[in-house]
Amino acid sequence: MDTKVLQRSEQDGVLGWDAYGVVEKTGDGVTGFKSGDKVYYAGDITRPGCNSEYQLVDHRIAALAPGNLSPEDAAAMPLTSITAWEGLFDRLGFVPQASANAGKSILIIGGPGGVGSIAIQLAHWAGLKVFATASRQQTVEWCKNLGADTILNHRNDLYEELKAAGTDAVDAIYCTTHMERHWKAMAQCIRPQGRIVLIDDPLNAVDLTMLKFKSVTISWEFMYTRSMFETDDIAEQGKLLSTVAKLLDEGALVTTRQKTLTGLTAQNIQAMHIKQESGTMMGKQVLVL
Amino acid sequence: MDTKVLQRSEQDGVLGWDAYGVVEKTGDGVTGFKSGDKVYYAGDITRPGCNSEYQLVDHRIAALAPGNLSPEDAAAMPLTSITAWEGLFDRLGFVPQASANAGKSILIIGGPGGVGSIAIQLAHWAGLKVFATASRQQTVEWCKNLGADTILNHRNDLYEELKAAGTDAVDAIYCTTHMERHWKAMAQCIRPQGRIVLIDDPLNAVDLTMLKFKSVTISWEFMYTRSMFETDDIAEQGKLLSTVAKLLDEGALVTTRQKTLTGLTAQNIQAMHIKQESGTMMGKQVLVL
Repeated sequence: MDTKVLQRSEQDGVLGWDAYGVVEKTGDGVTGFKSGDKVYYAGDITRPGCNSEYQLVDHRIAALAPGNLSPEDAAAMPLTSITAWEGLFDRLGFVPQASANAGKSILIIGGPGGVGSIAIQLAHWAGLKVFATASRQQTVEWCKNLGADTILNHRNDLYEELKAAGTDAVDAIYCTTHMERHWKAMAQCIRPQGRIVLIDDPLNAVDLTMLKFKSVTISWEFMYTRSMFETDDIAEQGKLLSTVAKLLDEGALVTTRQKTLTGLTAQNIQAMHIKQESGTMMGKQVLVL
Repeated sequence: MDTKVLQRSEQDGVLGWDAYGVVEKTGDGVTGFKSGDKVYYAGDITRPGCNSEYQLVDHRIAALAPGNLSPEDAAAMPLTSITAWEGLFDRLGFVPQASANAGKSILIIGGPGGVGSIAIQLAHWAGLKVFATASRQQTVEWCKNLGADTILNHRNDLYEELKAAGTDAVDAIYCTTHMERHWKAMAQCIRPQGRIVLIDDPLNAVDLTMLKFKSVTISWEFMYTRSMFETDDIAEQGKLLSTVAKLLDEGALVTTRQKTLTGLTAQNIQAMHIKQESGTMMGKQVLVL
């Protein structure tokens, strides 16, 4: 579910961006897809969403869905996979290949969430040493099963937790949630010349000077940038979804779907948003039409 | 002159980091230098500065001085060259080779200043299309002579100035001054997924959300990071100073020295700081002992 988009764009009418479906028809110039293909994508917030029977999507940001997964499992993946992949590889600059980043480390703040759950898996696949934050026993186990090497308890001081784990700096930080609460800890945990990627909006202005002496780099990751602005590299989004489908089919990644509701009803949509905003959700929820 | 360091570390006693001098003696394990060599460097703010007769410096952050320049001209270069080089190549990610970045563009805010004056030259050498800000006729000419392709007047709306110059986005921005005043204009001028490098401290907290929809990357460049933290890549600073010396000797770069004072007196040091803080300085001032 796309809580952040709901908060911002209720005026748009049709919500829902994470999608799995069957190609009805392709337009002129579309390559790589034909009628009947099963596809998955996260879409484009400048167009109506997928909580509807039919939807138009730019073929460059879609991919053939993983063949070995149920539709529900596949539908849980696009938005978070794109956000995690772009954050790790396009923003933090890690190499998007299996085991290619051995010797490097990352701290993933908000390990059990939708983005965290796939970021842990992709970082682990790419060879990074993964520190992830979690607090409850259930979410700690979840993060470990997804490939986190060390869990830090985000209810404690993260820098103290990191030092207790045997190091005083990480090469990069992926902050998936509560960036303001963790800002100071990020400034402490990041190595000199390290990189931080952010996805959640701060409510207030931020003290940037804390990161100056270390010459830190901070990136925003917003998965709709490529489609909103139709950037030159927009087709990278379709390509990364194809790679994710392959990794899911091979079992190198697992779906992060945790909960499924059936029926496109106002009640179900509301129930999903309430659960998502509760802050206790692990992985993703899926709505089946 | 190092106004920023003066403002922060008057308690350190000896100031002055930009330096040119003769090697008196080398320590064990020092390679690449011998007694009598002429060297230049910007030093390390965790050690006493160079406004003194003798100074200890880590050989990894020093280089042989350009041979074809006067000591005054050479002494004007280290701090600004390192800051400009690291900002362009280590933070913004451009390729540090002649003409290697053709087709890419950069906006340099504060073109006539110490860092701006060398950043314009290095960006031009590296093949970038250079937009630089200036306002007075004298500084406009100065920036053009250093290699700026287009001058934007920073007394006007920079985004309007950029559009009037025929484009609505640049690939990168090097903000050398007044980052808060230009923050909104930077958010407007930067292309989606573009990069911004900052060097001057904001007085207030900053609204980061303005840069989110474009997935912008913001880096701090602080030239003392490598020496303060003795980073793994500390020797890159000596190497880049060697390259800058070569480019100065070849005439691909010119010194940005504008003013020289003679004598290590309190009066001269004060006079230089007053001029620097006036905001009207083009290039750099040099003190000769």
